[in-house]
Amino acid sequence: MCGVLRASTTREPVRRLRPRGPLLTAIPREDTLFPGVPAALPARDRHAKECAVSDRAFQDYYPDDVAHCYGCGRLNEHGHRIRSFWDGEETVCRFEPRPFHTASPGFVYGGLIASLIDCHGTGTAAAAAYRAEQRAMDTEPPLRYVTASLHVDYLKPTPLGVVLEVRARIREVKGRKVVVTATLAADGQVTARGEVVAVRMPEEMMQRARAE
Amino acid sequence: MCGVLRASTTREPVRRLRPRGPLLTAIPREDTLFPGVPAALPARDRHAKECAVSDRAFQDYYPDDVAHCYGCGRLNEHGHRIRSFWDGEETVCRFEPRPFHTASPGFVYGGLIASLIDCHGTGTAAAAAYRAEQRAMDTEPPLRYVTASLHVDYLKPTPLGVVLEVRARIREVKGRKVVVTATLAADGQVTARGEVVAVRMPEEMMQRARAE
Repeated sequence: MCGVLRASTTREPVRRLRPRGPLLTAIPREDTLFPGVPAALPARDRHAKECAVSDRAFQDYYPDDVAHCYGCGRLNEHGHRIRSFWDGEETVCRFEPRPFHTASPGFVYGGLIASLIDCHGTGTAAAAAYRAEQRAMDTEPPLRYVTASLHVDYLKPTPLGVVLEVRARIREVKGRKVVVTATLAADGQVTARGEVVAVRMPEEMMQRARAE
Repeated sequence: MCGVLRASTTREPVRRLRPRGPLLTAIPREDTLFPGVPAALPARDRHAKECAVSDRAFQDYYPDDVAHCYGCGRLNEHGHRIRSFWDGEETVCRFEPRPFHTASPGFVYGGLIASLIDCHGTGTAAAAAYRAEQRAMDTEPPLRYVTASLHVDYLKPTPLGVVLEVRARIREVKGRKVVVTATLAADGQVTARGEVVAVRMPEEMMQRARAE
């Protein structure tokens, strides 16, 4: 079951953000960059359907200026465009690697695993920060997180050809920092564990993003 | 100055491996997947030219069966195909991210930074293991490493549009394990630090790679 964004607990009226650009659902299924290679969308769409509460991922709320991340930016047409959702007290992201995301034949590339944990971690950090402030993700000011440190333990080889599930839990929300732990599973077996220390995006990055 | 592979210290005659498939230099400059986007080859080629001792990277010695890694496999046409070399007691890898490898506009995606440290780390682990056995990298049996754990500290935003330099040092070579520390620099400024614990590739992966 997917969790509910705690908008109902908001105490004060909050200003809603302007629409945040096109949602992932508007992106065509055909990947023009990789002809003949299926895009990784079905797994994400399936999850969105399972989430009757909301079909908007955390990343759908990122301001346009900072929605170009190769891992999780919905506006980066060449990127992974991962999507993360609440599922009770956990968050979840499902992603199907492409056939060429290999470590050795038949197994998933570890750098992709690190990337999924990383971006799902920063997305989870943002969502957790909104929760901590008891407001919905479409309210001002926007909260966007970047990675201060990333740790991944690769427990066993991760098979390619199945949907991967990254689950995260919030360990700590303190000031501008959020610590998130995560597991990555394939076919129900946890193959990697990780920890992300995320911090509020530095003003330098925000300013540059707005200027471009 | 680039270091020398310690072939000269080999004590016993060793059987040379068969040729390991095409070198990176045989790969065309044009990237058919990303028309209009320059490939990341120039930085690597420049480094190869600087290395008068050898223009073969660690990854050029990987057996064909296990040379498909998205990060460092020379046979993965969609991957990063990083190249690593000795430089004295350190190893070095230079890589120019593509324009879409963004975190936010103007800065490099953290997942790519993790991937570079990861793959340069496993390449360094392999090279270190050959050194420890006092034999050249084109001798049997081949040594191939995978990541047991990866840690990255992101010290500051990494600017996009310049060649990144990953430098690694060997902290420990013990049994099937090699521990490598690394820095990543842009324009001479270190922007990330990492540690890779690499282990000899599990037999399960080797067998599957040979079978495919």
